Amino acid sequence: MMGLGIEDEAFIRGKVPMTKQEIRVLTMVKAHIMPKDVVWDIGAGTGSMSVEAACLASQGRVYAVERNAEGVSLIEQNKEKFGVDNLTVVEGEAPDALKDLPDCDVAIIGGSGSRLSEILDEISTRFKTGSRVVINCITIQTLAAALDYFRGHSDAFSYEAIQVQINRLQAVGAYDMAKAINPIYIVTGEKK
Amino acid sequence: MMGLGIEDEAFIRGKVPMTKQEIRVLTMVKAHIMPKDVVWDIGAGTGSMSVEAACLASQGRVYAVERNAEGVSLIEQNKEKFGVDNLTVVEGEAPDALKDLPDCDVAIIGGSGSRLSEILDEISTRFKTGSRVVINCITIQTLAAALDYFRGHSDAFSYEAIQVQINRLQAVGAYDMAKAINPIYIVTGEKK
Amino acid sequence: MMGLGIEDEAFIRGKVPMTKQEIRVLTMVKAHIMPKDVVWDIGAGTGSMSVEAACLASQGRVYAVERNAEGVSLIEQNKEKFGVDNLTVVEGEAPDALKDLPDCDVAIIGGSGSRLSEILDEISTRFKTGSRVVINCITIQTLAAALDYFRGHSDAFSYEAIQVQINRLQAVGAYDMAKAINPIYIVTGEKK
Amino acid sequence: MMGLGIEDEAFIRGKVPMTKQEIRVLTMVKAHIMPKDVVWDIGAGTGSMSVEAACLASQGRVYAVERNAEGVSLIEQNKEKFGVDNLTVVEGEAPDALKDLPDCDVAIIGGSGSRLSEILDEISTRFKTGSRVVINCITIQTLAAALDYFRGHSDAFSYEAIQVQINRLQAVGAYDMAKAINPIYIVTGEKK
Repeated sequence: MMGLGIEDEAFIRGKVPMTKQEIRVLTMVKAHIMPKDVVWDIGAGTGSMSVEAACLASQGRVYAVERNAEGVSLIEQNKEKFGVDNLTVVEGEAPDALKDLPDCDVAIIGGSGSRLSEILDEISTRFKTGSRVVINCITIQTLAAALDYFRGHSDAFSYEAIQVQINRLQAVGAYDMAKAINPIYIVTGEKK
Repeated sequence: MMGLGIEDEAFIRGKVPMTKQEIRVLTMVKAHIMPKDVVWDIGAGTGSMSVEAACLASQGRVYAVERNAEGVSLIEQNKEKFGVDNLTVVEGEAPDALKDLPDCDVAIIGGSGSRLSEILDEISTRFKTGSRVVINCITIQTLAAALDYFRGHSDAFSYEAIQVQINRLQAVGAYDMAKAINPIYIVTGEKK
Repeated sequence: MMGLGIEDEAFIRGKVPMTKQEIRVLTMVKAHIMPKDVVWDIGAGTGSMSVEAACLASQGRVYAVERNAEGVSLIEQNKEKFGVDNLTVVEGEAPDALKDLPDCDVAIIGGSGSRLSEILDEISTRFKTGSRVVINCITIQTLAAALDYFRGHSDAFSYEAIQVQINRLQAVGAYDMAKAINPIYIVTGEKK
Repeated sequence: MMGLGIEDEAFIRGKVPMTKQEIRVLTMVKAHIMPKDVVWDIGAGTGSMSVEAACLASQGRVYAVERNAEGVSLIEQNKEKFGVDNLTVVEGEAPDALKDLPDCDVAIIGGSGSRLSEILDEISTRFKTGSRVVINCITIQTLAAALDYFRGHSDAFSYEAIQVQINRLQAVGAYDMAKAINPIYIVTGEKK
């Protein structure tokens, strides 16, 4: 199954934190990516979500927006490793870097650099009915800002949110003990 | 996105308990289903995982094994609703009902009726290197039995296991409060 | 062990939601209640936390503030049932109802009726160095407001916060399956 | 609040893993320790639970059983630091080391060195109706063994079990992000 559900170890990564496989897949599920979709991956980090999205939007295109130079390089490397031609890396910061991109059907926000509200404003003007934005929130402040935004724009968006907590069992001799992974919130907005 | 990540509401269900979307998708990810794979879905319940698997094994075939008559009927209904022709419903109980099926590349165990060890024995003889079995464990006893089996057959299988806990945020007036979903363990064995 | 760790079933409760034992105890732990302390229990509900606090502040006094008449009656009943004389029930709404109370060493906030910031302002003026306020947050908005308050008043308070998720194993025939309880955040502020 | 709810940092600890405050307190709650109780703390580690138990059994006595020499030394140091005279350190391995101890009202099992069943047999013969044993399980195998024992001895014990998962919010600049702590199961048996 090239595409969805790539193992974490398969990606090239530096010291840039990477979304874990389980979270990456659940994010894709909430994104409802269709083969011809245009996808923005904002705060793309290592590009692990961009690569998965590019596999799903196989006849569309993914724009990976990343402001950090090390990240940009990693995305380029992962793009090459996985041979996904429909992935364009954009060095820059959202929402400014979004202005020149074609409108998208799906937006994924892995990092917002504290400008979430502005980014969602820009996304909103570029969305059509049914378009979806999926936000990975590792902080309470980002979660609260996302909920706050969707509540304040209930004319434009419906939303849902889940918290995901994964424990990985680790074999230690004759025993399996749980190793906790930090939980994350996934907030999904759908344009009305 | 027909296939992976179907919404829970889309399935026809009676009183038969159904695996939640998030768990269903993570199970698919761990299963590594390829387009031409033969998949056994054991204890198929409503057939929600069979349908997802059939979308992934688009040129292969999924055998949904279910001993409960109401379940068998629901699987047939969901098969029709989602138009997945490569899904065969098998009324019967594992491991006996597995004897006449063609060998499989992937086995999914949603319910084992306390015969997990026998079922895994049968699966093991029908697997080739790299084949995968994914077990959804909602009880500690099934989890312990799965770990025990793989530890006792470490010559034949490697394994990994995760616990997944999802909380769904529910809007109540001006507030979002977490509604917990019962956690589940997903154990994956890979034939050496 | 009269006092800390009373079983849920021991309390008289109507339809008023009650904090579960595990959360109640962890709240008490974070509160650092000493025998001679004055404690405010704000949004006291059934009074289950007031009763526990009154056992710990055995030579002090607990003021249970509750605006809901059914709650007030339940607190009175639980006070009588557990024979805690050092518990005073105050019908009214915080922060107004706090004005006439003696200064406190510990404040517990189980419910804030969306006036959390005002309540914390009042508490702050009545606290001395080392005094503690513990807030049970079942909504993201209350959690965010609590964090926001303490971050905005870092001259006056240090804080810590935990999320607690409990799964209770339920015996079903030969199996034990996890039944999830909704998670809660416990935020603790200590006056500098 | 000397006793229940001592902060983790207050204990002297080496490289011996220590039960976290929240788990320690919930274990105490499940143990129902009364002032005159005799308590066995089996696999006492650093003695953090022994010290808490000794505060609760203020007119009773706690026997801290530990086979590891470094652990024994740490328990002695913590005993002295917290000034709990009613704590006796026993170097040895359960169940053998239990033979010479006076009967107990409460047993806490933090570590069982894979001899859980034998230890519970010994405890059972030394218990009277209402006596309680609380087992902290960090592995699935210990959990399964505990459940298996109580199910196999349902004439002698009733039991309950919870899983506890705590996430600690960590302030990172303007944000609070969750840091997961490994979950634990707490199984409690009560002698019929």
